[in-house]
Amino acid sequence: MAELLPSMPALDGVRLAAARCGIKKKGGLDLVLIELPEGSLTTGVFTQNAFCAAPVTVCREHLSSTNNTRYLLINSGNANACTGASGVESSRASCAALASMVSIEPQQVLPFSTGVIGEPLPVEKICNALPEIYAELSERAWELAARGIMTTDTQPKGATATIQYQGDSITVNGIAKGAGMIRPNMATMLGYIVTDAAISPELLIELSKEAANLSFNRITIDGDTSTNDSCTLSATGRSSVEPITTKDHPVYALLRDAVVSVYRQLAQAIVRDAEGATKFITLDVSGGATEQECLDVAYAIAHSPLVKTAFFASDPNWGRIVAAIGYAGLQCLDVNLISVYLDDVLIVEKGGRAQSYTEEAGQRVMNQTDITIKVLLGRGDCRQLLWTSDLSHEYVTINAEYRT
Amino acid sequence: MAELLPSMPALDGVRLAAARCGIKKKGGLDLVLIELPEGSLTTGVFTQNAFCAAPVTVCREHLSSTNNTRYLLINSGNANACTGASGVESSRASCAALASMVSIEPQQVLPFSTGVIGEPLPVEKICNALPEIYAELSERAWELAARGIMTTDTQPKGATATIQYQGDSITVNGIAKGAGMIRPNMATMLGYIVTDAAISPELLIELSKEAANLSFNRITIDGDTSTNDSCTLSATGRSSVEPITTKDHPVYALLRDAVVSVYRQLAQAIVRDAEGATKFITLDVSGGATEQECLDVAYAIAHSPLVKTAFFASDPNWGRIVAAIGYAGLQCLDVNLISVYLDDVLIVEKGGRAQSYTEEAGQRVMNQTDITIKVLLGRGDCRQLLWTSDLSHEYVTINAEYRT
Repeated sequence: MAELLPSMPALDGVRLAAARCGIKKKGGLDLVLIELPEGSLTTGVFTQNAFCAAPVTVCREHLSSTNNTRYLLINSGNANACTGASGVESSRASCAALASMVSIEPQQVLPFSTGVIGEPLPVEKICNALPEIYAELSERAWELAARGIMTTDTQPKGATATIQYQGDSITVNGIAKGAGMIRPNMATMLGYIVTDAAISPELLIELSKEAANLSFNRITIDGDTSTNDSCTLSATGRSSVEPITTKDHPVYALLRDAVVSVYRQLAQAIVRDAEGATKFITLDVSGGATEQECLDVAYAIAHSPLVKTAFFASDPNWGRIVAAIGYAGLQCLDVNLISVYLDDVLIVEKGGRAQSYTEEAGQRVMNQTDITIKVLLGRGDCRQLLWTSDLSHEYVTINAEYRT
Repeated sequence: MAELLPSMPALDGVRLAAARCGIKKKGGLDLVLIELPEGSLTTGVFTQNAFCAAPVTVCREHLSSTNNTRYLLINSGNANACTGASGVESSRASCAALASMVSIEPQQVLPFSTGVIGEPLPVEKICNALPEIYAELSERAWELAARGIMTTDTQPKGATATIQYQGDSITVNGIAKGAGMIRPNMATMLGYIVTDAAISPELLIELSKEAANLSFNRITIDGDTSTNDSCTLSATGRSSVEPITTKDHPVYALLRDAVVSVYRQLAQAIVRDAEGATKFITLDVSGGATEQECLDVAYAIAHSPLVKTAFFASDPNWGRIVAAIGYAGLQCLDVNLISVYLDDVLIVEKGGRAQSYTEEAGQRVMNQTDITIKVLLGRGDCRQLLWTSDLSHEYVTINAEYRT
């Protein structure tokens, strides 16, 4: 697999650290602290799962009280999800301990947890490790932080982009984790993106939502929306580029593209590192009457265990793709208008196998690691992209043995 | 695994046969003929997949023209799905050939196909085998017919029920097949139920829909709705019990229960023989404000690869069940009202792990082959049942190697 973490530049005033606080039974980094400089703005998107985890509840509370977040405190190995009122107390206690140590308000700390659901969070282990991890903070620790938030991930994930404007520059850095229970409905399990841009709070919120919708909300591995999905976007304002306060500002479009690019790289890195994945599949559904019906078709294909196992086997079993399109629930779907391509190979037209299709041509594409399934619905002008993985023996092994 | 085919009594005038016509590459029975006596009534329910297979199209045509079906002609090994106009011609040709041979109308023959999608149906092989299979028809061949319609099934599936009324009896016999691409949305891949009851056409249609909704439409293995789902209910009228023309008839309730029982046994047999399945899971969701929200929760759990792999591993990872409930899409879901049981063991209450829960108690239930997940939503009085299986290595193997 290609490297999923590039060399990450430092961002002025943004310091990170990772430590072993003893939550993970097998040892390993399980606590990460990210410090944002004074004056930073932070916003975030969070899981829509009704059983949202305690730290998500606390993040929402804190962000509704202030956007002047100074610290992101993340533990891996325990999700603090489905832990009831005591779980919320634990999350609050970790924020309070850090806030007291560095003399800020508890609302300026955002807590995040990822790992096993339903186990009480050993919050005292986190609190005990705070002095040590605080002492380790460094502007050069992006890779270490990316490693510290991993659970079943096999690789740390990061992305960076820099834009130039009138001799000055803006940088966007991000790290993320996630490999299973992935059908983000607002954000991946965990993602942290920071830019040194100076931008108004309103535009930052809008950009955070837009970028998540074009990236983390367009990937699925197993259709399971996590209880802990969280993704924050912070802006330190330390770039020399003048502050962005309207969308008409010439640098806004550049920043938007850079932020979306970082979000997409992180989201796609999660799919590439999907539990047991051997293929990276892009679903490109166009010709829909609405964006929603493009998504319905894309998700039906992406969630079909039969399609996913066929891709694992590199078997151009296009009938399974067609069957999934057929049960996606589109009203009055005329199958005679539909075309389906595997990369550049037309496989389905007029409700059946394409005249020009050969098994050899299909097999050639299926042998690749990166494959695009292109569906043309012939009903309208909407289009949606989605990214997913195959379903392998390794997925079953990882998830059957997760707690052992 | 328990036997899924009981000893099947003969039904007067209903004859069956199975043959090898050469469609299956590996040989084996691949053609089945079922003869219904003159005067029989037949109705059916069919897939809602937009890419419905050619034989489904022809069945619908024929049943809209007459309910005096005399023959059910079924091939396995080739689904005749996504085969365009020529596929429909092939299905019609097979009906015409049989009708011509026995001097009836082609509309009195219903065609069915199951197997690989997208390959042209070798209809000449079917036509060539008709004289031989017709000569073999026998009232004692229910088991043989059940074997002849199998594809990835490991066992033939049948069910029977008999009711007594004032010294006379009515019998209901059924056979079915299916093991993968199972989320029937009208019927399982293929099911044929015949009773000797005399019943009005209107009541037969109503009974067929009701029984399918309580059985085949309440099972899911992989969430993939087939292109070929078809299930017919025939009544020969040969029982000595007086004809049933209204629901008030005292025998109607008895017949309904017998028919539903046979449908449910067949549907559950499909889940028990699910591709690679090691567990039979009953989802019992109650306390919903509507039946649909009970079903939404049941399907979310049943389709979660994480829940399914945890069951494969006999791991009481209840957090995954709770996460699935949380993303089922119920509006304003109050997680504090929800309780979840594994059989008789309370695992979740008030949004978190139950006070009384122990890992040992959960493990005891998970070690069983038959497990009920009971969810109490606390929002209303509706309830729905659904049956499903786990997700094993064997499922991946079967579906990765299906065409090789």
